[in-house]
Amino acid sequence: MTDFNATRALFDLPPGLVYLDGNSLGPLPKAAPARMERAMRDEWGGMLIGGWNRAGWMAQPRSQGDRIGRLIGAVPGHTVVGDTLSIKVFQALSAAVALRPNRRVILSDSGNFPSDLYMAEGLIRMLGGSHELRLADPEALEEAITEEVAVLLVTEVDYRTGRRHDMARLTAKAHALGALAIWDLAHSAGALPVDVAGGGADFAVGCTYKYLNGGPGAPAFIYVAPRHAEGAPPALSGWLGHRAPFDFELSYRPGEGIDRMRVGTPPVLAMAALDAALDIWDGVDMAALRQESLRLTDRFIAGVEAACPDLTLATPREHDRRGSQVSFRHPEGYAIMQALIARGVVGDFRAPDILRFGFTPLYIGGTEVNRAVEVIAEVMERRLWDRAEHRRRAAVT
Amino acid sequence: MTDFNATRALFDLPPGLVYLDGNSLGPLPKAAPARMERAMRDEWGGMLIGGWNRAGWMAQPRSQGDRIGRLIGAVPGHTVVGDTLSIKVFQALSAAVALRPNRRVILSDSGNFPSDLYMAEGLIRMLGGSHELRLADPEALEEAITEEVAVLLVTEVDYRTGRRHDMARLTAKAHALGALAIWDLAHSAGALPVDVAGGGADFAVGCTYKYLNGGPGAPAFIYVAPRHAEGAPPALSGWLGHRAPFDFELSYRPGEGIDRMRVGTPPVLAMAALDAALDIWDGVDMAALRQESLRLTDRFIAGVEAACPDLTLATPREHDRRGSQVSFRHPEGYAIMQALIARGVVGDFRAPDILRFGFTPLYIGGTEVNRAVEVIAEVMERRLWDRAEHRRRAAVT
Repeated sequence: MTDFNATRALFDLPPGLVYLDGNSLGPLPKAAPARMERAMRDEWGGMLIGGWNRAGWMAQPRSQGDRIGRLIGAVPGHTVVGDTLSIKVFQALSAAVALRPNRRVILSDSGNFPSDLYMAEGLIRMLGGSHELRLADPEALEEAITEEVAVLLVTEVDYRTGRRHDMARLTAKAHALGALAIWDLAHSAGALPVDVAGGGADFAVGCTYKYLNGGPGAPAFIYVAPRHAEGAPPALSGWLGHRAPFDFELSYRPGEGIDRMRVGTPPVLAMAALDAALDIWDGVDMAALRQESLRLTDRFIAGVEAACPDLTLATPREHDRRGSQVSFRHPEGYAIMQALIARGVVGDFRAPDILRFGFTPLYIGGTEVNRAVEVIAEVMERRLWDRAEHRRRAAVT
Repeated sequence: MTDFNATRALFDLPPGLVYLDGNSLGPLPKAAPARMERAMRDEWGGMLIGGWNRAGWMAQPRSQGDRIGRLIGAVPGHTVVGDTLSIKVFQALSAAVALRPNRRVILSDSGNFPSDLYMAEGLIRMLGGSHELRLADPEALEEAITEEVAVLLVTEVDYRTGRRHDMARLTAKAHALGALAIWDLAHSAGALPVDVAGGGADFAVGCTYKYLNGGPGAPAFIYVAPRHAEGAPPALSGWLGHRAPFDFELSYRPGEGIDRMRVGTPPVLAMAALDAALDIWDGVDMAALRQESLRLTDRFIAGVEAACPDLTLATPREHDRRGSQVSFRHPEGYAIMQALIARGVVGDFRAPDILRFGFTPLYIGGTEVNRAVEVIAEVMERRLWDRAEHRRRAAVT
């Protein structure tokens, strides 16, 4: 059982701040600067080129992949770290499309994060326009899965509303109709227990700078189900995904299994910061994390709804249907969020009217929830936001 | 005029080591750990999500791109930092191929770095096999440029031999025959003055962890000639290459000019280390660097050739035909390099028989060249390498 009072002490947070934006950028693990200093002085400075082997730089994308793999229910050896989430989406999508050569539809929903959709559009352009990106309403996604669909591309937890899709159910329907399923775990990894193996995901991708606390611009990860490990063709076929990178052959041969999803030189310094973050995660029980997250979000929802009748809950109330984020709607949401931030309660705003609050039990507890509710209630009750700011923003967008 | 005795003091190198492998991984700038500590504690830790604007994280790929742009002769506003070199090759290549829709040949040479060729192969597979990757012998590359060629994909300085292609001449021939030219500057940027504008390059890409000293796994860069800025279609169309990323539109609209070559979230921590490295470069006169580099390499070649008749120069002797690296061939090169490294002279080995030595005037001077020649001469004359090591390696490869 994880002690969340103990984990809170492992992060460096500005005193007095209630940081409810870890769903966008996780805070600094206290051990990260020293770990980075070691990577810079002892490894880079001291070992120079020798660091690739002596410091284990070359092996890190796989070992860190496995540490993340535990959090998302992956079998060891099938997750690897590197690049950005958009690149990993492209890799998963191009491989999945190639595995379903007789189908032409990539199905997603209008709640998906735009970059996933943009990468799909780019892929379709490269494929000569033979494919179609079809967007369903999130609530109508299940019915939209048909035998035309090659690949279902879904973000499990909606970045605006926190609404959670049912991975096992949607994947089962996709499989029953002959389609593959790619799951984007940007707002799931580290937020709740994920079970890519049990849920049947064919591919999963995610980033490490949100709930995983890997640091700004920390690398992404990709999981390929073992059944596709040797069959998935890598589109971004870089040298570190080659079967024998240091043989410098003139032709590409895909690496074994997940290795083929590596592309270029791994981001060693970024991985040092991520290492410190994963040291914390290694000790976390995901079921306990989820229990605490639900306790915090339930309390937050109840508190805000009781005190602020003008804020409308945008997140589904049922536990199974949401992640670890709570969103409320208000037409002047932007200005309200600025007022909250000025008072030390940091969430963020997503157009047109969403106030987002992320709940991360590693460093957020009941005290912070109570304080957040108190500040929100005060701001709403006394209408403490700058209405001019609302009008300025409205004029821009 | 740059004072290279002064720049030497800006790097942290293990005492007594003669580091001639900066063409693979540059050493640690002394200011980098403090710059990184600031990025971690003050920016990430202190500003949290606010760092994207307050610390300038979002603008850094462009500002660092321009600092690198000066070293490669780019007009400001047309170079951007991000991803890995392999990804940047893919972006340049897919855009270039799209700009020459009626041609089917991607021309490169067998001396190119394999990852460039692998990325081309991957692109061709995605394009349905309609294109052909044609490899010429490096010495026959010019004649191989024909009207069939859509894109010439060349690494300016050969990673094994240090042989330098003539950018202006090859590009002019490509243009005369209606082809485009992509230049990989992995072994050029920071090694010698490059003139992408004067040389007519359509696209240029490179990495920052070799001569630029950005750190292990530091991000890459891409330059797009101003004449293609608004016409180059981005294949890896990620959200940060969108015209208005934070509007979260459902469809992709390419960003203005070079912005469209951005893909995902920028690697903020890696860029902090690169920042410290670029601070040094900001003060370097590239013509003076080249002069010093040629002085060092001339002296090294003369010294080794005089003392070691068994080592055969693999690098062209003429100044115009080489970069800032000198390579020698020997059938037992691997074992010889191990013996040199054990004696504090660090170069590296590339199969089958190449010993590589990189000369980087920022921290290598005449003293180091003399010491290197002395050690190489001693190892060769007294045959100090482990012949068993040679046989073991031969058995593996």
